[in-house]
Amino acid sequence: MTVMFERVALLGLGLIASSISHASRRKGLAKHIAGFARSAETRETAKQIGIVDSIHDTAAAAVKDADLVILCTPVGTYGALAQEIAPHLKPGAILTDVGSVKGAVVRDVSPHVPAGVHFIPGHPVAGTEQSGPRSGFAELFDNRWHILTPLPGNPPEKVQALEDFWVALGSNVERMTHDHHDLVLAMTSHLPHLIAYNTVATAGDVETVTQSEIIKFSAAGFRDFTRIAASDPTMWRDIFLNNREAVLEMLGRFTEELAVLQKAIRWGDGQTLFDLFSRARDIRRGIIAAGQDTAAPNFGRAPTKKN
Amino acid sequence: MTVMFERVALLGLGLIASSISHASRRKGLAKHIAGFARSAETRETAKQIGIVDSIHDTAAAAVKDADLVILCTPVGTYGALAQEIAPHLKPGAILTDVGSVKGAVVRDVSPHVPAGVHFIPGHPVAGTEQSGPRSGFAELFDNRWHILTPLPGNPPEKVQALEDFWVALGSNVERMTHDHHDLVLAMTSHLPHLIAYNTVATAGDVETVTQSEIIKFSAAGFRDFTRIAASDPTMWRDIFLNNREAVLEMLGRFTEELAVLQKAIRWGDGQTLFDLFSRARDIRRGIIAAGQDTAAPNFGRAPTKKN
Repeated sequence: MTVMFERVALLGLGLIASSISHASRRKGLAKHIAGFARSAETRETAKQIGIVDSIHDTAAAAVKDADLVILCTPVGTYGALAQEIAPHLKPGAILTDVGSVKGAVVRDVSPHVPAGVHFIPGHPVAGTEQSGPRSGFAELFDNRWHILTPLPGNPPEKVQALEDFWVALGSNVERMTHDHHDLVLAMTSHLPHLIAYNTVATAGDVETVTQSEIIKFSAAGFRDFTRIAASDPTMWRDIFLNNREAVLEMLGRFTEELAVLQKAIRWGDGQTLFDLFSRARDIRRGIIAAGQDTAAPNFGRAPTKKN
Repeated sequence: MTVMFERVALLGLGLIASSISHASRRKGLAKHIAGFARSAETRETAKQIGIVDSIHDTAAAAVKDADLVILCTPVGTYGALAQEIAPHLKPGAILTDVGSVKGAVVRDVSPHVPAGVHFIPGHPVAGTEQSGPRSGFAELFDNRWHILTPLPGNPPEKVQALEDFWVALGSNVERMTHDHHDLVLAMTSHLPHLIAYNTVATAGDVETVTQSEIIKFSAAGFRDFTRIAASDPTMWRDIFLNNREAVLEMLGRFTEELAVLQKAIRWGDGQTLFDLFSRARDIRRGIIAAGQDTAAPNFGRAPTKKN
């Protein structure tokens, strides 16, 4: 038990905030966790499951006296939220976030941050397809990467304190610029989600195949896409609206590659298909070797019982 | 223990054949399982792990006296294989297959099938990303769907006998035409694999993001694509070459939908994004309700230990 922050304020109480609370309590990293959520139902749930020590009706009240304030709402809300809390932030406090885009967050939040408060953007590369306070768990960040994108004015000791906190939550930490973050995540997260959503939407619109057939025969590949396409729609809308350039860039590359595959299929060019398919296995092996996925076949999914 | 076939011949000894053997032995469905694989190494492994009662250097030898012959090699090999075994098939035998396409299989195999042998095409909608005889397991087919695409001349009792065998292996069985099969699977399996392969290939070619970054930050979505993109390249090359029309049709629809999403991102049309993303959750719920996937978040993947 090492208290790293006297008072932590979590603004927004979904999967990530709830997991921060569980992981923090596992090690006693915060003396007091103050919480805020816009919805009364979420506040009630958070109180019931005990992920906050105090719950507040306004973000302004939640951040009072907090040494560490973490924005955990969809990124589209950050600008207004930062404006609202700005006058109430404690001098010397660290303000950070968990948004999946970083350039837009710097653009929206920075103008509101008062002198003496240290805004250090961050992004835990962890999550599940579930949402809401009940979906959080203490192990979410274990051995996952947390990206910090410090700003030029950040005092090194404040950045270090925030890094230490995320390491204590279970993460590995890497620092990079916010522009580079947005490129990397456009490829490893935003494009895959877009493609998954699009595949599921395509399946929903094929008039020659019934919905029941799509579901029955999903185990041959499709169901893996539906998992990440079950993620929170509001959160993902905001991500795409706020990382437009990088997503369009990766999407352009994806479409080019796809045209090559399409042509190979049309013309029966098996060698092009085989070569491209063979390359993919190496990346899979790298991910397993890096501890970022399980090597168990089928994600270790056990066969399900007959209904 | 109910013997359903005296002698079963498995031609090709990869994931599916090996799982058929394990599932069959779990219930004693075959008195003798004869195996053939073109590679000496695979034959040796199959012998070592005991998935066959006899192992043969030629397909012709393996099918001798077999009541049930199952083609378990990549679909591109079926034509030559059928031609090779045709003179050696036992009158009255059932010949089936496990190929992921069915129209092309009918085209390639049917001309070689001698009178008195019953060719009934089939496809177990089950699998993992792993290959080879060691990757098989008895539960692979449990509560998964097996699609039979009987041909007009098939005697009903033979189709029923094959259906009973797959049910005994753990499957649910559905019958449909081979054309419809190829459309359904183009959507639920072939398109997702193509998209997954393409996404992984795109990631491998982005010069502004390192391979190490792709791997480190894969947990945010990308890694789910790499699992199915780790499937056997030869098998998948053959599938795309042999279900060209249906795959190109689904790919066309996918590309149209993607253009709509791309435009919505470019023009900041959040409502279009939100509406499409919201639809995806329903299909996910349907798949879980149908027992075709686990509801555990993240596929129930436990967080991995720090290295």
